[in-house]
Amino acid sequence: MAVYTEVADEDLRSFVAEYDIGTVVSCKGIAEGVENSNYLLQTDRGNFILTLYEKRVNPADLPFFIGLMEHLARLGLRCPTPLAGRDGVHLRSLCGRPAAIISFLQGLWPRRVTAQHCAALGRAMADLHLKGQSFPGERPNSLGLRAWRPLFEQEARRADEVKPGLADFLRHELDHLEAHWPQGLPTGIIHADLFPDNVFYQGDEVSGLIDFYFACTDFLAYDIAICLNAWCFEIDGSFNITKARLLLWNYQQVRPLSAAEFEALPILARGAAIRFLLTRLYDWLNTPAGAFVKRKDPLEYERKLRFHAEVGGAAAYGLEYDALTAGEH
Amino acid sequence: MAVYTEVADEDLRSFVAEYDIGTVVSCKGIAEGVENSNYLLQTDRGNFILTLYEKRVNPADLPFFIGLMEHLARLGLRCPTPLAGRDGVHLRSLCGRPAAIISFLQGLWPRRVTAQHCAALGRAMADLHLKGQSFPGERPNSLGLRAWRPLFEQEARRADEVKPGLADFLRHELDHLEAHWPQGLPTGIIHADLFPDNVFYQGDEVSGLIDFYFACTDFLAYDIAICLNAWCFEIDGSFNITKARLLLWNYQQVRPLSAAEFEALPILARGAAIRFLLTRLYDWLNTPAGAFVKRKDPLEYERKLRFHAEVGGAAAYGLEYDALTAGEH
Repeated sequence: MAVYTEVADEDLRSFVAEYDIGTVVSCKGIAEGVENSNYLLQTDRGNFILTLYEKRVNPADLPFFIGLMEHLARLGLRCPTPLAGRDGVHLRSLCGRPAAIISFLQGLWPRRVTAQHCAALGRAMADLHLKGQSFPGERPNSLGLRAWRPLFEQEARRADEVKPGLADFLRHELDHLEAHWPQGLPTGIIHADLFPDNVFYQGDEVSGLIDFYFACTDFLAYDIAICLNAWCFEIDGSFNITKARLLLWNYQQVRPLSAAEFEALPILARGAAIRFLLTRLYDWLNTPAGAFVKRKDPLEYERKLRFHAEVGGAAAYGLEYDALTAGEH
Repeated sequence: MAVYTEVADEDLRSFVAEYDIGTVVSCKGIAEGVENSNYLLQTDRGNFILTLYEKRVNPADLPFFIGLMEHLARLGLRCPTPLAGRDGVHLRSLCGRPAAIISFLQGLWPRRVTAQHCAALGRAMADLHLKGQSFPGERPNSLGLRAWRPLFEQEARRADEVKPGLADFLRHELDHLEAHWPQGLPTGIIHADLFPDNVFYQGDEVSGLIDFYFACTDFLAYDIAICLNAWCFEIDGSFNITKARLLLWNYQQVRPLSAAEFEALPILARGAAIRFLLTRLYDWLNTPAGAFVKRKDPLEYERKLRFHAEVGGAAAYGLEYDALTAGEH
């Protein structure tokens, strides 16, 4: 749930006048996205998204995000394209915040994920990874391996309020991840937050990837690991091996995984689980009472973490590496 | 902030297929409106609003609301028009809730109210009152005079948590209102919730009135009193007499007020203030911690109530009845 900033009509009209997109017909706050204020802006020429960047986004990172979306859109990836104003500038200011107008993408994000959604996701994510290779920008993952220990230390004292024994469990997991985190896997631009609400579909096909505000440079396979967590577990906590297999197999058709990447998936998925567990735990412990934000359950990710910690190897995700690379399905 | 119900894509597609409005292109939850879940629904034929009625709306009242909007739209009032499905039915069910597709209105609601907004509001509200006269439906005001005492009694014990002395103040006000509430004023359909976020403008003109889910049968002048409170006070608590005068004068040009209605404005405004004070107080005391609803300050309405309790007469709102009816401005 978002929309933190109310934009006055006069401010909106003069902002929009800096673009060659017609005049404002309506502008409604969108109840999606947690980090920024998003408006569906309708002009007499079409629909657009107006984004005001709120405090969780570092303004110094905005040129990276805007440049990345432009780059990917130019290469044909279906993703939001920041519009340039009449002065050629993409990023300006509205109500004291950095703001941009972004192209509107058609499609719906899936409230109920199907196996076909996962198949199409695999292809779209691999396409993103390939097209990101030629982007010259770099941004370290500020929520990557090295960020987890300090984040945990902030929460360690209160973690057991959420579940007794949680602090000890997390400490042991961090020890394991730091000791066994892979090295030398292919790196590049990853989305790093490819949850279902950031992927639009028309029918079974992906019509757009959105919300690149966690995008960074990291192991490409780590993006897959995030998706195994976000897309392949059912509401009851069970792991849907069909979804995982389709995701991996379809990814592979567009960008082949190396054996090392494939074998690293369980540890990467464990890391991806602890990353979302730790940020959810932080939000859980620090969201003031009465705040109009719906907190996400950190323990959902504790269960996912335990799943990955217990699998024997990447074959637990639906297929052996040989089967993956054999091109059979 | 709303959107309580997530609609799955398949459910949405089959719901929309019952209408002759094309196929779904996108559907985004709108972060406006407190009572219902509203989505901006885009099809290949245009934009629509999809509303799911949540628990605060009594399903038994929905035929009244839907019928009223149809009636007003047919008479040319700019307001949402419920669409009929292929079967002629306007109100159906989605995700276990009553649901309707409503026409999309252009315009922006004013984040900063100007005197010109108040002028146009006066004309639009009077137009609504005139067009409502021929609507055959009736609905008692469930938040009218008789509802206030029971609402207060539920809160009396805890009112002083919000401000010491508040319970006594409210009890005396209720005594006064019950003893002096006017009788025999012209009645008809009122909107009963005509706050700025329910009035859309294009430029200085009203392009639409929305959210008829408090509409009821009551004194027409009570609707004006609600607007004096909602539109004519500045953020610092001061009363803007220019706004009030323009609101009243423009209302008068479309539907002339009787002397009795005009003289009753202070007591009606006092009643309108206590109505919103009591419901805000209820929400304040009963919103669970962590709920993602932004609570509105009840004490804003305590200050407005005190203002109206202290005015000498309706002339305090900017003009004498003679000046109002002289047609001068």
